[in-house]
Amino acid sequence: MMIIMRTSASQEQISHAIAYVEQNGLNVHLSRGTERTIIGIVGDIRRISKETIELMDGVDNVMRISKPYKITSREFQPENSIINVNGVKVGSDEILIIAGPCSVESREQLLESALAIKEAGGHALRGGAFKPRTSPYAFQGMGEAGLELLAEVREITGLPIVTEVMATEQVDLVAKYADVLQIGARNMQNFNLLHAVGKTDRVILLKRGMSATAEELLMAAEYVLSNGNRRVILCERGIRTFETATRNTTDINAIPVLQAQTHLPVILDPSHSTGKWEYVLPIARAAIAAGADGLIVEVHPHPEEAVSDGAQSLKPEKFAQMVRQIRAVAEAVERKVK
Amino acid sequence: MMIIMRTSASQEQISHAIAYVEQNGLNVHLSRGTERTIIGIVGDIRRISKETIELMDGVDNVMRISKPYKITSREFQPENSIINVNGVKVGSDEILIIAGPCSVESREQLLESALAIKEAGGHALRGGAFKPRTSPYAFQGMGEAGLELLAEVREITGLPIVTEVMATEQVDLVAKYADVLQIGARNMQNFNLLHAVGKTDRVILLKRGMSATAEELLMAAEYVLSNGNRRVILCERGIRTFETATRNTTDINAIPVLQAQTHLPVILDPSHSTGKWEYVLPIARAAIAAGADGLIVEVHPHPEEAVSDGAQSLKPEKFAQMVRQIRAVAEAVERKVK
Amino acid sequence: MMIIMRTSASQEQISHAIAYVEQNGLNVHLSRGTERTIIGIVGDIRRISKETIELMDGVDNVMRISKPYKITSREFQPENSIINVNGVKVGSDEILIIAGPCSVESREQLLESALAIKEAGGHALRGGAFKPRTSPYAFQGMGEAGLELLAEVREITGLPIVTEVMATEQVDLVAKYADVLQIGARNMQNFNLLHAVGKTDRVILLKRGMSATAEELLMAAEYVLSNGNRRVILCERGIRTFETATRNTTDINAIPVLQAQTHLPVILDPSHSTGKWEYVLPIARAAIAAGADGLIVEVHPHPEEAVSDGAQSLKPEKFAQMVRQIRAVAEAVERKVK
Amino acid sequence: MMIIMRTSASQEQISHAIAYVEQNGLNVHLSRGTERTIIGIVGDIRRISKETIELMDGVDNVMRISKPYKITSREFQPENSIINVNGVKVGSDEILIIAGPCSVESREQLLESALAIKEAGGHALRGGAFKPRTSPYAFQGMGEAGLELLAEVREITGLPIVTEVMATEQVDLVAKYADVLQIGARNMQNFNLLHAVGKTDRVILLKRGMSATAEELLMAAEYVLSNGNRRVILCERGIRTFETATRNTTDINAIPVLQAQTHLPVILDPSHSTGKWEYVLPIARAAIAAGADGLIVEVHPHPEEAVSDGAQSLKPEKFAQMVRQIRAVAEAVERKVK
Repeated sequence: MMIIMRTSASQEQISHAIAYVEQNGLNVHLSRGTERTIIGIVGDIRRISKETIELMDGVDNVMRISKPYKITSREFQPENSIINVNGVKVGSDEILIIAGPCSVESREQLLESALAIKEAGGHALRGGAFKPRTSPYAFQGMGEAGLELLAEVREITGLPIVTEVMATEQVDLVAKYADVLQIGARNMQNFNLLHAVGKTDRVILLKRGMSATAEELLMAAEYVLSNGNRRVILCERGIRTFETATRNTTDINAIPVLQAQTHLPVILDPSHSTGKWEYVLPIARAAIAAGADGLIVEVHPHPEEAVSDGAQSLKPEKFAQMVRQIRAVAEAVERKVK
Repeated sequence: MMIIMRTSASQEQISHAIAYVEQNGLNVHLSRGTERTIIGIVGDIRRISKETIELMDGVDNVMRISKPYKITSREFQPENSIINVNGVKVGSDEILIIAGPCSVESREQLLESALAIKEAGGHALRGGAFKPRTSPYAFQGMGEAGLELLAEVREITGLPIVTEVMATEQVDLVAKYADVLQIGARNMQNFNLLHAVGKTDRVILLKRGMSATAEELLMAAEYVLSNGNRRVILCERGIRTFETATRNTTDINAIPVLQAQTHLPVILDPSHSTGKWEYVLPIARAAIAAGADGLIVEVHPHPEEAVSDGAQSLKPEKFAQMVRQIRAVAEAVERKVK
Repeated sequence: MMIIMRTSASQEQISHAIAYVEQNGLNVHLSRGTERTIIGIVGDIRRISKETIELMDGVDNVMRISKPYKITSREFQPENSIINVNGVKVGSDEILIIAGPCSVESREQLLESALAIKEAGGHALRGGAFKPRTSPYAFQGMGEAGLELLAEVREITGLPIVTEVMATEQVDLVAKYADVLQIGARNMQNFNLLHAVGKTDRVILLKRGMSATAEELLMAAEYVLSNGNRRVILCERGIRTFETATRNTTDINAIPVLQAQTHLPVILDPSHSTGKWEYVLPIARAAIAAGADGLIVEVHPHPEEAVSDGAQSLKPEKFAQMVRQIRAVAEAVERKVK
Repeated sequence: MMIIMRTSASQEQISHAIAYVEQNGLNVHLSRGTERTIIGIVGDIRRISKETIELMDGVDNVMRISKPYKITSREFQPENSIINVNGVKVGSDEILIIAGPCSVESREQLLESALAIKEAGGHALRGGAFKPRTSPYAFQGMGEAGLELLAEVREITGLPIVTEVMATEQVDLVAKYADVLQIGARNMQNFNLLHAVGKTDRVILLKRGMSATAEELLMAAEYVLSNGNRRVILCERGIRTFETATRNTTDINAIPVLQAQTHLPVILDPSHSTGKWEYVLPIARAAIAAGADGLIVEVHPHPEEAVSDGAQSLKPEKFAQMVRQIRAVAEAVERKVK
C-alpha cells in the first residue's frame, strides 16, 4: 500500500500519516519527489484501514498494490486446479461440455434432452428446479420434484447433474441430489449463500454477476474457497453493456484474464452471453479458441415449447453440430473433447 | 403483443402463427404492409408464450406492448402511496431523511451518531448489523448484538431503525428489531428474500441493483407487493458505468422516470451513488430538486475510524449543513422537511 | 510515477529499471517492502515512457500520480475562470441559460423561438445549421443559410448565437457568424477540430462525448486551451449506459467532479441527457442544485413539427416555467439568474 | 412503423394520428385490442416523422420495424461483398491479416516490422502517420513524412498500406499514398469525414466507435456506401464497459451479429480490444473461431521503445506464432490463411 500526499501537504500532515502506520506495527519507506511525498507501507496491511488514511488531511490518494484475494490467486497456487466431473479433468487439456434445458419441465422433456446430449458427446446434464425469474408471475421451477427427476435421469443416463441453488435454506436439499451446485449470476454476491456452499463437498459452478468485474468474481470465489471448498469452476456468462443487439455482451477477454489471475478452471455459457441460439455456435467456438476449459449450453428438444429461455436453446441436432465443431477447434488449440 | 413477420414470410407461416394464438383463446388483428405482415394479439397474453412465437419460422420479432408489472404501476394506482415513517408522510410533500453509520460498531458510536442526527433534523437511523462485504476477510457486522444496540438507541432517541436483511433466514430476527427492512443492491434480485419480506408487515426499503434497469427495480418491487406488503420505498443508489471518477454514477434521471411509472415513493442514497463525502451535499440537493421523496446518507462521528465506508460518510456538522441546504431546496420546489 | 516490481523480480531487473530512469536524468526513491520493491520516480516524467517501463521484465505495474492535463486543472489556476456571455459572468454566482431549437429550420421558427426565449429570461440562442445525424438520409441542416438566419435573429433580439461546428474547414465560416462555437459530443475527440477552434477567439462550448470519462473531457479542453483559447465552457450531456428508459444517463456527479478538477465553468444539457421533454424540468432543477453554472435546453415553438429532436424539446410556456423554477432553486443555493 | 395508442386514448386522438399518416400519402391498418388501439403504417415511412407522431396526444409509443440502413443491409444484398486486398478475397473463406506498428516512427522501425510481418505471413502493413492522441502533449505522428515511408516500404516489401485519415482536409493526401483508408474509432461518427472517404476509390477500414452499437456502425457504413464507395471493411475493436481488467471489452458477439445484418466483411483488432499483448493471441484465435474475416494487430520490433501502444504490441516472433495458431483455427472452421 502506498500513501500519495497532496502537493500542498505539510510536514506535520506527513508525520501524522507515518505515525498512524507505525503505531499499527508496520514500517514505512519515504519517497520525496519534486512535487509530492509518497509513503510506502511495508508489512501486513490488514492491520490498517485504507479509508482511515484516505480521510487524513494532506492525503491525496491511497493505492493498494497487492490483490484482495489469496487462496483463489495463481500466486497462491501456480499450477491449475484440476476438478473431476464425470471423468473429465477440468483444468487440464480436457474440455467439459455441460448441456440441458433451462428448466426441468417434465420427465419426458428431461430424459429426451439427456439422451440426446449423451449421444452427442456431452458430459453433464444441466436443468433448473429452482428458477430465479424477473417476474413474480413467471414459472418458478418444479422444486424438489424437479430434483427427483434429475436424479432419476442421472440413474438412466449416467450423466452427473448440474443445478442451481438459490438460497441458503435450499443448500442441503439441492446438495442431496446434485453433483454440481450452480450459483447463478444474480447470486454471485449473495455472501450468505457463498458461505453455505463453501461448507459442502460438492463442485461449485460460480457464474459471474452480470455487472461484476473479473476481480469481484474472484473475490466471490474466495468466499467459497475460504470456507473449505476448493472445487470451484468459474463461468463467464456475459455482462451488461449499452449494446442491445444481444441479451448480454460475451466478455471473451475474461477467459485469458481470469486464467492469468487464478488456478481455477473457467468455462463459458454462450446461451446466456448471447441470448439467441443463432449466435451460440460461433461464440462456443470462440470460447474454446480463447482457451476456455469448457462450456455450459442450453439444449431443449422442442425450444418453441420451452417455458423459459426457448430463444437461446439449441435443438439436439444443433447441439451435436456444436460438439463436432468444438472438437475441431479444441484440436487446433491442442486441447481435446473426450 | 404484436408479431412482426419477416419480409420473406410465406402465407403458410403467417397462418401457423395466427393458429397458435387463436388456439389459445385470443384474437388477432392482421395488418399487411407493403413489406411485412404484422399480427396484433388481442386478449390476456399470459396464456401464450412470446418465446414460442419468436421461434416460429417466418417470425422476425415479437413486441410486448403492456408493462410486465401490475400492482406496482401507476396505471394500477394513479395516486401516490403514502408511507408513514416516524410521522413523515413519505410520498406526500414531506421529505424523509434517513442517516447513520454504514456499520453498527459500538454503543458509543451509534448513540453519538443518533443524537447528532436527531439534533440536525434527521427522521430515522440507519446502521448495518449484517454487512454484505466483497471480501470474506472484511468485517461482516455485529449481527444480533448490533440489532440490540439499534433497539436501545431507538429507545433513547425515538428514531426508528432502518437496517439491512441479507438472507431469508434472518428475516424474522431482523423484523423483530427493525422498523424498516432494507434490501441491499446486491440482493435486489434475490427473489427468495423479496418473497420473504413481502410476507412481513415492515416497511421495505428496496435499493436498486448496481446494474438493474428501472424496470427491473419495479419488477423486484412487484415481488414484494404481490406477496401482500404494499409499503415499499424505492431507493436509487447509483449504477455501474465506465466512469471511474466516482464509485458509482448517480442515475438522477431515475427519480422522475420511476415516479412516472409507479405510485411508490423514491429516495436517493448520495453516499453510495458518489462514494466520496465531498460530493454528497451537491448530489443530495440535486435529488430533492429532481423531486425525490427523501434521502438516506451515511453519517459517522469519526469517519477516519469507521470500519467501512468512511470515505463516503459525513461528519455530524456536515450532515447538519446538508439538512439546512435540503430545507432550502425543498422549499424552492414546494416540498418541506419536517 | 511509481514502478511496482513483481514479487518475483530479481535484483538485476530492479537495477535495469532504475538505470533506465536515471539515464533519462530523473532520480529514484527505492522502497523495499516485505513482498515487493517499489521505485518512485522524481522529476519531469515527460522525459520517460510509461509503456517502455511496463514492458520491462520484472515490472508488475506503473502508476501515474500526477494529472495528465495542466492548464485546465484547478491546481494550475485555483480561482474560477469567469467567461462573459451576453453580460452573464459564467463561473461566478450567475447562471447562464442557453435555449433554442435543435435545428434552424426557417426564419419564422427561429424568430418565434428567440422572442419567446428572450421574454422568458434566456440569455443566448442555440440552433444548429450543420447537424450531425446518425442517418445519411436525415436532414443535415441548412448550412450557411442557417447561419445567416441566426445572425439576423441576433440582430433583432440581441441574443448571442451558440451553434455547432462539425469540421475544421467550417471553423472560419461558423466563427464569422457565431458568438459561441459548440463542439458536439461526437466530436469531443476530433483532435484536429479541437486544435482549430483553439486558434479562434470565440467562446467554446465543449460537450462531453457520450462515453468519455470526466478526465477525457478535461484532456479535450486541454487541446483547446493549449492552442491559446482559454474561454471554454464544459457541458455534461448524458452518458451511455445499459439503462434504456432514457436516451442517455445524466451524470449529475460530473458537475461537482469537474468543478473540483478544473477552473472552467460547467453547464448541463438536460434535453439530451434525458431525451424526453417530460424529464427536462426536474433534471434542469437538479443541475442547478448540484452547482452547475448554467443550462442549455432545446425549445421549439411547435415540437411536433420539428425536423429533429422534437421529443426532447420544450414548448415556450414550459421553458418559461423552467426559468421560474431555476430562479427559485438558484436562490436556494445562493446563485442567481439575471 | 406502428403507432401504439395509450389505453386512455380517445377516438378523436386516434383519428388525428390516422389523418396525419394519410395526409402524407400512406395507408393505415387499424388493430383494436381489448386495452389499446394500434395503428400500422403501410408505405414509405421516410415521408413522415416518428417524432411528430410521438408528441401527439394519446400516443404512447411509435415502433420502427424496418432497419434504418439500406445499402449496407443483407436484405439489400444477400451474398457477401468480396473485397480484394493484396490478393486476399476478404469476405470469402480467406482470412486477411493486417499488422504493423501503432505509429510510423522511422524508416528502420517500419522496414524491420514490414519484413517480419511479410515473412510470418501477414498480408498488409498498418502504421499511423496521423495519430489521434488523448493528450495534446503526446506524439501526434510524423504526418506526410510518415506516409512517404509507408510508400517506400510498400515498394520494398509489396505489402499494401493501411493508414488512418483523421480529417476531411487530409483525405486527398492520405489517399495518394494509402491502399486502405482507416477511419478510427473516435471518428466513426465524424459524418463529414465519412462523406469524404465515400467519394474516394480506396478500400475503407471502418472501426467501431468505443461506445457505438452494432447498428450505429452499420449506419456509419451507410454514409460511406451511399456516397458511392462500396468497399468497406468493418472492424470490431472493443467497447467501453465497467470492466477495468482490460483496456476495452472485446465484443465477440458483434462478429456474428454484424455478419447476420450486413454483407460487408468484419474483422477484429485484438490489440485495442484487449490493450495487453498477453491477451492478443487468445482473442485473435477467438475472432477467427467466431467467423471473423480477418485481423488487424499491432506489431513492433521493440515494443519497449514504441512511442505509443507498446503495451499491446506483439514482438515479431509472437506475431509469427499468432499466424501459425490462426492457420490452425481457420482450418478447424473451414477457412484458410493464404
